[in-house]
Amino acid sequence: MEKQKGKATVEIFGETYTLRGDDDPETIIRVAAFIDDRMKRIARNNLRLSPTRIAVLAALNLAEEYLRLEKDYQELVEMINGEK
Amino acid sequence: MEKQKGKATVEIFGETYTLRGDDDPETIIRVAAFIDDRMKRIARNNLRLSPTRIAVLAALNLAEEYLRLEKDYQELVEMINGEK
Repeated sequence: MEKQKGKATVEIFGETYTLRGDDDPETIIRVAAFIDDRMKRIARNNLRLSPTRIAVLAALNLAEEYLRLEKDYQELVEMINGEK
Repeated sequence: MEKQKGKATVEIFGETYTLRGDDDPETIIRVAAFIDDRMKRIARNNLRLSPTRIAVLAALNLAEEYLRLEKDYQELVEMINGEK
């Protein structure tokens, strides 16, 4: 994995991506490894899925988890504000 | 969009997915529409990307946002526990 400030070249599910972002290269590499792992896990459990469908399912799972965490976060904020 | 308890048939970036989950069909449909929208936005800004790469980029963006929210959440928990 090649890296420089705010940029990293990573491999995700067999394809190379040069990613740029506000995060440091370590974070970009960590996030990429996380998605690579998620996709490989989905692929193992669904042998006939195309790479696109595997990536879409990974994105769907993450979106669900994001919404759940967002709800927990909001509840915590409401608790702090004494609304509950 | 077809729906029944914990299951929904949706279209994401031109492909049909039958999704099952613990969430109600409305939530599944909402999450699917969210990913569809994200992918279409990425595609508009990167005309030559393959559907797989578009889906992977959508997943990467979501993972970054998830990690950011998780950090905020942890900070809030620490604040509540008087650790800060």
